Amino acid sequence: MFKQITPNEIKAYSKEKLNVLCDTLRKTIYDTVMRCGGHLASNLGAIESTVALFYVFDFPNDKIVFDVGHQCYAYKLLSGRGDRFDTLRQAGGISGFPKRTESEYDSYDTGHAGTSVSAAIGLAKARDLQGENHHVIAYIGDGSFNNGLVYEALNSLRIFNTNVLIVLNDNGMSISPTVGGMSDVLTGIKEERSPEGIRLLESFGLKYMGVKDGNDVEEMIDALQDAKELLKNGSVLLHIATKKGKGYEFSEDHPTNTHGVPPVGSPKEREYSEVLGESLCELAEKNNKIAVVSAAMKEALGLSEFFVKYPERAFDVGICEENAAVLCASMAAGGIKPYYAIYSTFLQRAFDEIIHDVCAQDFGVTFCIDRAGISGADGETHQGVFDLSYLSLIPNLTVAVPKDTEELKKMLEFSATYPHPLAIRYPRAGKVIFPSTTPFAFGKWEYLNKTVETSKITVIATGERCLIIAMKVLQVLQEQGKSFDVVNARFVKPLDVEFIRNIQSETIITLEDNVFLGGFGSMVNGECIRMNKRCNIKNFAYVDTFIPQGSISALQSEYGVNCKEIQAYIEQVLE
Amino acid sequence: MFKQITPNEIKAYSKEKLNVLCDTLRKTIYDTVMRCGGHLASNLGAIESTVALFYVFDFPNDKIVFDVGHQCYAYKLLSGRGDRFDTLRQAGGISGFPKRTESEYDSYDTGHAGTSVSAAIGLAKARDLQGENHHVIAYIGDGSFNNGLVYEALNSLRIFNTNVLIVLNDNGMSISPTVGGMSDVLTGIKEERSPEGIRLLESFGLKYMGVKDGNDVEEMIDALQDAKELLKNGSVLLHIATKKGKGYEFSEDHPTNTHGVPPVGSPKEREYSEVLGESLCELAEKNNKIAVVSAAMKEALGLSEFFVKYPERAFDVGICEENAAVLCASMAAGGIKPYYAIYSTFLQRAFDEIIHDVCAQDFGVTFCIDRAGISGADGETHQGVFDLSYLSLIPNLTVAVPKDTEELKKMLEFSATYPHPLAIRYPRAGKVIFPSTTPFAFGKWEYLNKTVETSKITVIATGERCLIIAMKVLQVLQEQGKSFDVVNARFVKPLDVEFIRNIQSETIITLEDNVFLGGFGSMVNGECIRMNKRCNIKNFAYVDTFIPQGSISALQSEYGVNCKEIQAYIEQVLE
Repeated sequence: MFKQITPNEIKAYSKEKLNVLCDTLRKTIYDTVMRCGGHLASNLGAIESTVALFYVFDFPNDKIVFDVGHQCYAYKLLSGRGDRFDTLRQAGGISGFPKRTESEYDSYDTGHAGTSVSAAIGLAKARDLQGENHHVIAYIGDGSFNNGLVYEALNSLRIFNTNVLIVLNDNGMSISPTVGGMSDVLTGIKEERSPEGIRLLESFGLKYMGVKDGNDVEEMIDALQDAKELLKNGSVLLHIATKKGKGYEFSEDHPTNTHGVPPVGSPKEREYSEVLGESLCELAEKNNKIAVVSAAMKEALGLSEFFVKYPERAFDVGICEENAAVLCASMAAGGIKPYYAIYSTFLQRAFDEIIHDVCAQDFGVTFCIDRAGISGADGETHQGVFDLSYLSLIPNLTVAVPKDTEELKKMLEFSATYPHPLAIRYPRAGKVIFPSTTPFAFGKWEYLNKTVETSKITVIATGERCLIIAMKVLQVLQEQGKSFDVVNARFVKPLDVEFIRNIQSETIITLEDNVFLGGFGSMVNGECIRMNKRCNIKNFAYVDTFIPQGSISALQSEYGVNCKEIQAYIEQVLE
Repeated sequence: MFKQITPNEIKAYSKEKLNVLCDTLRKTIYDTVMRCGGHLASNLGAIESTVALFYVFDFPNDKIVFDVGHQCYAYKLLSGRGDRFDTLRQAGGISGFPKRTESEYDSYDTGHAGTSVSAAIGLAKARDLQGENHHVIAYIGDGSFNNGLVYEALNSLRIFNTNVLIVLNDNGMSISPTVGGMSDVLTGIKEERSPEGIRLLESFGLKYMGVKDGNDVEEMIDALQDAKELLKNGSVLLHIATKKGKGYEFSEDHPTNTHGVPPVGSPKEREYSEVLGESLCELAEKNNKIAVVSAAMKEALGLSEFFVKYPERAFDVGICEENAAVLCASMAAGGIKPYYAIYSTFLQRAFDEIIHDVCAQDFGVTFCIDRAGISGADGETHQGVFDLSYLSLIPNLTVAVPKDTEELKKMLEFSATYPHPLAIRYPRAGKVIFPSTTPFAFGKWEYLNKTVETSKITVIATGERCLIIAMKVLQVLQEQGKSFDVVNARFVKPLDVEFIRNIQSETIITLEDNVFLGGFGSMVNGECIRMNKRCNIKNFAYVDTFIPQGSISALQSEYGVNCKEIQAYIEQVLE
């Protein structure tokens, strides 16, 4: 276990001891991530700068906002959380991201990219308005620096007339290598061939400073001390060149693979992303109009092969979720068939563009939405439990949920000739394949189990996870000689209204891997009321709260989709 | 009526005839806007550059994307829509924004800010992939140029490796004067004191060109011809200095007041924005923690006085809706009480930040959401009919809808000490004041009409417009000796569950100024099902489609909240 030291002890450390501390942090982080999973490379690269920040600044009086927040492990270890660090990303344990509720050292929660500069400005302004005088720091990677929100924040620096320190940790990578104009500018500065890049950044009203080796703790301390001095007169951008994955050879050489690491020993399952990648490659071979857009996540989304095979039709725009959506809409306007692959919660960033650009113009853009439903250990900011709600409210948008990876493949085949907006949402892991009972068709549901006579109960479930629950309960009850009907609601929008009308059961139960409000069950309720269907309805969906980190199945149970409760409810109705 | 000319005729015009054409366009636009309402100043400023674009380029073969789209009137007049231009912004008439369904000259629909550069890149890439060779132009104002989406698009220019022309129409204004770092850069370039500003823009991979007077049609033609030449080898940014409102003295001097102009003769009513401004000033006088943030709309939102009285606590961040949301969250994290005033559809841009920054951290930020519900003549992109749905699905967020301007005041007073996220949504015009029957309290509904015995019908309506409909129908029926109960559902979230439980009527009717999906009626349905309430429910809300331009009351009726149908339904139940 990491031997806890206090921030004051760090300030008294010699150079040698600081370097030893960095080594200890590196080992602790590596070992913990190997056991608990988590972000490895980004955290290894941020160790020296974090130690230097503790040396120069006074946390928690001074405030720091970590952009995305996936590089805060050293910060957590140094701010009194060493004793609990072995609970990283576990239920009830230390979060993999900053959490105000976890420690007074965490000033602002993050999880998505690009918020840190705005957040630092807001914290600094609050400080000024209340006559306080601590320092406020935004710690941001070059990948996040592509995000439009950062530009908006830089734009407002002069308006807010306050002083913040922006530490730009530039390792040339986000999850994928950083791309685009701003990245070129930063590289130009680092390579000392672009002094105008510095003027560019300074034109927003801040002073530029550079550190050649942000993994050198002494160099970092010197620079931060200078920056602290400059902060008295205005905002400062401290641009530090670091090595993502610093200190562990495997990680240094493969920073993409080690950005997020599963715990050692996880079972290897077929992921939906693999099927996505394979299917899109097959479709693209037959149809040269097909293009793929990703926002800095091509590997995790299964698109590596597509990018190699069809480089002229594959676009990674960096962490620019909004831009990616508009690019899809406009490529569709020009006759191309775009696929936008993204994680569920990151797509929230493009909500307006889905409405305004894709759906209002009714373009044939397909959204391939991974990590939908509860995603587990990353916690509140990464639980994809809102997408059925925020997508289904949008006119012209079809929302599909495959029952398994095979059905994802069918949906993608269908999408290739579907000329309207389509969203397909699925979790990471595919675990089972359900035998299909009817051919796949637009808007049509199917029975996965149908009793010959009218069943008292029909369970309508959407998505693999909920169908697994339904089928498990069915199996148990069938062993007791009981049964109920199970429906695969593979389209959430449009609902299969005809199917609902024909259900003769006294009780309908809905299951979904999404919040109740505005979600699948809510839509089924609305349809039943509209058609004046006289039956009991029971909705199982997530309750109206932010769902913390934990194991997926435990969180499902705890927050509203509980296998035992569902079984108990069904048994009670069948009695 | 404007005498229609063809794009080819323009190309043959002499300098004199071009200037006469500009004068004619100016007069036509002015007269039409005075009669139909619409955007005046931005359109007057864009006339000469639009004429020059027709002179140099070949529409509709060449494609143009107007950012926001509120400066496209001259373009519409010159592209065969002169004969219908007197129907501007009327039901079934010419849209105030580009509309692909209206003309082949409109390549891409807009309405919100910042999408044009991404859209042009997408259109250009589609062109390249299909071996076509037309030109693609983004026409964008300096106000929109603040938006993060533009930065994301510039960032991806090199990734897409395609050629677009960006015409940056710089009049120093958005709806309010343009603010922030990028605006300073542009001003520096215009005033010839900042050559590094040019290098800044060029660092994204485009060639910079400037035009000193973008209202000089000849100068514009020369520059566009040069730009067309440069386009062969890469993307071009043509920065043109124009005068917003050019040519009409009143408009030139008061571009903010004439950005959007109501038709002459509209009745002058008390607007919710006035009440917002007054109330926030009163609250700020008593509480020095209160701050206000606006995204380039302070006047339209009623905040002018606040900005004058409390300049140190009033922030206009430009068209940066996301940034504004994070600034509110972080100021709240620092102990300030922020109010974010914005139009309903523009807030869609900050959807992820509402979730990720404000609500996940449970900050006491208040969203003051104007132009909620159908907003009328601006059409699809401006109908605020999604907010009840996309807000109510977010945990920790309270969603309130005042029954009139007096209740908005009470809600704002309540908000001052409410430590959690709060959204208050209201339309532009306040028309009536309803007598309150019970004191205002968090989460509590009230009867506006209650029969002594149990009424067969209870109408639950949310917001002034729907309550007006309910009370109108009530009045008609009371004259026939009939009655029903009317409820003011001033909180949509949380629903007043106790109130719903106590309703004894056989039939509950919900009315809302929002789409059905995920909205108020949908939530009431869910609650009734959960509490196993055995009654009939009928929901009146907007159908699942994009609602075009028209008069507010006509659109309400046509798209699902129809006074006559509601009356007929009630009469039928009461029979």
